[in-house]
Amino acid sequence: MKKGLFITFEGGDGSGKSTQIGILRDRLAESGYDVLLTREPGGTKISEKIRSIILDKENSEMDDMTEAMLYASARAQLVSEVIRPAVEEGKIVICDRFIDSSIAYQAYGRGLGDAVAVINSYAIGECMPDMTVLLKVNPEIGSRRISERNEDRDRIELASEQFHKKVYEGYLDLEKRYPERIVGIEADRTIEEIAAVIWEKISRLIGE
Amino acid sequence: MKKGLFITFEGGDGSGKSTQIGILRDRLAESGYDVLLTREPGGTKISEKIRSIILDKENSEMDDMTEAMLYASARAQLVSEVIRPAVEEGKIVICDRFIDSSIAYQAYGRGLGDAVAVINSYAIGECMPDMTVLLKVNPEIGSRRISERNEDRDRIELASEQFHKKVYEGYLDLEKRYPERIVGIEADRTIEEIAAVIWEKISRLIGE
Repeated sequence: MKKGLFITFEGGDGSGKSTQIGILRDRLAESGYDVLLTREPGGTKISEKIRSIILDKENSEMDDMTEAMLYASARAQLVSEVIRPAVEEGKIVICDRFIDSSIAYQAYGRGLGDAVAVINSYAIGECMPDMTVLLKVNPEIGSRRISERNEDRDRIELASEQFHKKVYEGYLDLEKRYPERIVGIEADRTIEEIAAVIWEKISRLIGE
Repeated sequence: MKKGLFITFEGGDGSGKSTQIGILRDRLAESGYDVLLTREPGGTKISEKIRSIILDKENSEMDDMTEAMLYASARAQLVSEVIRPAVEEGKIVICDRFIDSSIAYQAYGRGLGDAVAVINSYAIGECMPDMTVLLKVNPEIGSRRISERNEDRDRIELASEQFHKKVYEGYLDLEKRYPERIVGIEADRTIEEIAAVIWEKISRLIGE
């Protein structure tokens, strides 16, 4: 069976993920690849309903474990309904956030520890990313970029500075633990420079 | 610290759980106990939102693991927000369905196996029921009772007969595995007979 590729993007808010995902998608499409873009939490009808519960500012009393399990349930649905079938069809799937977000935000940020990895191993099964681009931006700078956008912040974006620092440390730990899969890039470089690094890694993966 | 009691009711649809819960609640209240009634999935604002995703007939494409994790997330919220605080305050909490439902419906019914127990151990922590009343009704009879009510069936009630048979077998296995905690009662007896058996067991537990 022909097999595609599964690429995820990770990083704190304001790290420039969306911009880089757009650039990569265009380049892959220009090279003739069938690209599917998706995002977390969300990406399916059911997962978007779960997303709205997770991000709703009204749900400030949400228990940390409830939050972690809601993310995992939205992920299980996205994997079974979208990601796995698309990769099996030979597509290149790019997902904005995936399992590393849960490890960084819930295991490190919320302090839930190993429970998060165990729960998520059930959610994704064998569907691990082939490559993960981690855009590293100091949490204070990321937070400033978000403020400048002047948008309404959701429940997660509203969490404390201390929380976002722990998330950042989580990402750095993950980068060290999975050097084969995770490509960490300092996000203080120009958009073009970052895009070039990403394209170089991806080209090698797809044998362009 | 004074500690209350946590009692759960289990059984297939149409087993008479609601009737027996009502009778027990009244008896305990008459004896001067502070009783808190709750139900699953639901029982908190966030858990009720999760409930509506789980039971919505429109969500027929729901992955089995997504379903199991949604139940667990609703449970984690109910435990942390309602059950644990109430038991710590000395109340008697009666919950309509709890972890055994997940084991019976998702591990046995959907065939997800041990994953369900592992995920739920994170959802409930130390908050296991002190006693569980299992009302045993043959799934065909239960299904007929539900039909006679003439109500709209939700997504779970609409599952196949084969599924409900596996759920029933799951409950019987649980009864064998946890004889100290689970009180199994044949639900083909009269309402009064069943209520008497339950009251006898509860009285012993609370030392009446």
